[in-house]
Amino acid sequence: MTHHQLTENGQLKHFLTIEGLKRDLLTEIMDRAEQFSSISGRQVKKVPLLRGKTIMNLFFENSTRTRTTFELAAKRLSADVMNLNINTSATSKGESLLDTLHNLQAMHTDMFVVRHSQSGAAEFIAQHVAPHVSVINAGDGCHAHPTQAMLDMFTIRRHKQHFPDLRVAIVGDILHSRVARSQIQALSTLGVGEIRVIGPKTLLPADSQTLGVHVYHDMAAGLQDVDVIITLRLQFERMQGALLPSANEYFTSYGLTEDKLKLAKPDAIVMHPGPINRGVEIASTVADGPQSVILEQVTHGIAVRMAVMSMALGSHSEQQETSA
Amino acid sequence: MTHHQLTENGQLKHFLTIEGLKRDLLTEIMDRAEQFSSISGRQVKKVPLLRGKTIMNLFFENSTRTRTTFELAAKRLSADVMNLNINTSATSKGESLLDTLHNLQAMHTDMFVVRHSQSGAAEFIAQHVAPHVSVINAGDGCHAHPTQAMLDMFTIRRHKQHFPDLRVAIVGDILHSRVARSQIQALSTLGVGEIRVIGPKTLLPADSQTLGVHVYHDMAAGLQDVDVIITLRLQFERMQGALLPSANEYFTSYGLTEDKLKLAKPDAIVMHPGPINRGVEIASTVADGPQSVILEQVTHGIAVRMAVMSMALGSHSEQQETSA
Amino acid sequence: MTHHQLTENGQLKHFLTIEGLKRDLLTEIMDRAEQFSSISGRQVKKVPLLRGKTIMNLFFENSTRTRTTFELAAKRLSADVMNLNINTSATSKGESLLDTLHNLQAMHTDMFVVRHSQSGAAEFIAQHVAPHVSVINAGDGCHAHPTQAMLDMFTIRRHKQHFPDLRVAIVGDILHSRVARSQIQALSTLGVGEIRVIGPKTLLPADSQTLGVHVYHDMAAGLQDVDVIITLRLQFERMQGALLPSANEYFTSYGLTEDKLKLAKPDAIVMHPGPINRGVEIASTVADGPQSVILEQVTHGIAVRMAVMSMALGSHSEQQETSA
Repeated sequence: MTHHQLTENGQLKHFLTIEGLKRDLLTEIMDRAEQFSSISGRQVKKVPLLRGKTIMNLFFENSTRTRTTFELAAKRLSADVMNLNINTSATSKGESLLDTLHNLQAMHTDMFVVRHSQSGAAEFIAQHVAPHVSVINAGDGCHAHPTQAMLDMFTIRRHKQHFPDLRVAIVGDILHSRVARSQIQALSTLGVGEIRVIGPKTLLPADSQTLGVHVYHDMAAGLQDVDVIITLRLQFERMQGALLPSANEYFTSYGLTEDKLKLAKPDAIVMHPGPINRGVEIASTVADGPQSVILEQVTHGIAVRMAVMSMALGSHSEQQETSA
Repeated sequence: MTHHQLTENGQLKHFLTIEGLKRDLLTEIMDRAEQFSSISGRQVKKVPLLRGKTIMNLFFENSTRTRTTFELAAKRLSADVMNLNINTSATSKGESLLDTLHNLQAMHTDMFVVRHSQSGAAEFIAQHVAPHVSVINAGDGCHAHPTQAMLDMFTIRRHKQHFPDLRVAIVGDILHSRVARSQIQALSTLGVGEIRVIGPKTLLPADSQTLGVHVYHDMAAGLQDVDVIITLRLQFERMQGALLPSANEYFTSYGLTEDKLKLAKPDAIVMHPGPINRGVEIASTVADGPQSVILEQVTHGIAVRMAVMSMALGSHSEQQETSA
Repeated sequence: MTHHQLTENGQLKHFLTIEGLKRDLLTEIMDRAEQFSSISGRQVKKVPLLRGKTIMNLFFENSTRTRTTFELAAKRLSADVMNLNINTSATSKGESLLDTLHNLQAMHTDMFVVRHSQSGAAEFIAQHVAPHVSVINAGDGCHAHPTQAMLDMFTIRRHKQHFPDLRVAIVGDILHSRVARSQIQALSTLGVGEIRVIGPKTLLPADSQTLGVHVYHDMAAGLQDVDVIITLRLQFERMQGALLPSANEYFTSYGLTEDKLKLAKPDAIVMHPGPINRGVEIASTVADGPQSVILEQVTHGIAVRMAVMSMALGSHSEQQETSA
């Protein structure tokens, strides 16, 4: 699967999943994001890197926040961006996904940013686009959300530098979370010392052990001496049936409060992919407290997406130059 | 309240309300708009003044027309603009307004243009944004609509020049109109000789007298010898209960017809913030007649919004340069 | 009607219908599109030709695909584009179409791209805009779709060069198709040797003979020795009552299969305006086969729209320069 993501020279062409990517590549993404990060603080937050390129946001699943960060990233790279809400477009006239895709591609599109409720959708699209088109996965079902994972890694690196020394805990609904899957893969690849997942049995995957992570069902034990706590959003909308008793009960057991936070290292940072459910996954005092880096994650999301977009489209130029 | 709008040097930072602003500042807005007005007539209607700036249109209340003018103003200043329909975004996932706002701000947004059905919403947002962010009120409940008021002042100045010599009548539903409130404040600040409001008792605020305006319930008396007639939109959608008998009866009493217009000065101009209800607030012959400047108001709306946007974002540069 | 489209010097000002346009003008559109076509293959797919111009997409009828091609064409010409979904805008507040139009025009708009379910809508709008504004018809009811017809002509010319030597067959619902009407006019004007329409009696206009076309109800006879086959979309949503028995029966009689395709010349090309209904108008093997140029049509749509937009706005500059 993963060979689809790289060119023959090992450069990023699509960005579909963290799985199978080498540590050097993840580090390159973060190094590039570091450069773009400084641009965002300037008076003129724009570079002409992707001028004349056409990027289409294909959001089959609604997400204003994620779409906005990709749109902003593209605009700050000077690309032309089109937002296509696919539910209301030609597919409603009975056209198949592939026909829609081939049509949009025929408009000399350079990149599709894809969000879809089905796992594997971005991969499927990447398999069917022309060689000159890149695909970025902006979240597919329960499978992967690689740009979210990379902005999280970037945020951790900003605060903690050396990954092998770290103990990182991910708390919540690991089972349904594409964010958690991608995070665990990225943390592993970057050589994080110890990765823990904390949650009720019903929300942990059966193969947790094989993921190379340590499993905890008890918050107190799981948070002991960690450097990073990643709380996950409780995906009420994704959960079916009575896996959970109530938001209140969840908060009592797994909500991150100031008391529980004290079990971690004193300089532990607190993360959340957002949007947060205050009083469910996290207490407001913690979300807004001095150890929270939740809004930094949003800021870094732009820089990381600029990095991934420019790397993927840069790989084409080199290919074209090579083949020319 | 008003101190929020200005920097320590007295420059416009937010634009939330006309209340409390000095005459010099209103004049500066109009002078700047005069410069932008000439740009709009050029072959290339664009200046690079806000290149690399990010402006987000946060419309909690739908308004294609007002959003379009702000979007156009931003684009003609070369800014990057994002339109966010907040009803369909993260707030639908249970996120609070402030969390949404802090997230959008974390994307290095420079300005929020806010439209909201609740009075005070823009002010509330301005109180909670970071120091580097400007907020423009594009209409909040029954409270204020300052850019509309300023484009009206600009239109009047184009035709009438000297404000103290003028007699201006505002006709209609003063009670529910944020436009009227902002207009009265602007007309007062600019020293207009006489401000009249004309309408049925049910549509005039109880404190009309204290606003420094002359109150008329009879059109014939109210329009006598005025230089400017501002007709207001009858906000059917905002009025509750039986304040009004019918659109027909309203037109008979307060609709501006050619006959009633003859009571004003022969060179009186006729204004309306739009969209007009023909045959309710105004007869078509008047709306389309030689004294109507209704479409000029729309044109000037772009220039005035360019002026306000560039002044608000310019105030930051100066702050940053000073502190650097 | 057609005089509306041209300036006094015979240059394209509006693009409403193919009817009445001279062969030279259609050729000029294709020649210009040829130039823009090469731009779309470049690394930077952008020219500054319409920088500072404001183009508004007024889509009264939903069409993501057509809107997207116009938006992309405008962006690649460096214009500022606004997308206005008119159903959700001021007209919902009771404003008339003309008032909405005059308001948008007052914002110094240079061009309206109009899609409407009523025949004549674009023409009506062109009659009511100010002299400095151009109108492009992006499809009006059953009347015309001139940019689609021109991208089809451009695609034919790319493959077949000399129009008088060609035999072209249009298959399907001619009666309800604005695409077919515009195609027949363009093919006639370009002097195509023989134009055929093929379809059941219920889907052919009563005046087919007078259009200067040859009428066939039988596919086998109609496709004999043709150079170009244009299949039309079956507009299920536009057809009322039981004009057709079923999609299956339609496919049996008029669907383009590999067997039927063999009746045409061996190098015949197969076209469709999209989106295609696979297994209704056309078999998948044909749509995806070597003679299909369906996706090329999409690609050429951008170049042709860039050509029409730049010609229409170029005509103004010359007028202004002349009058200056």
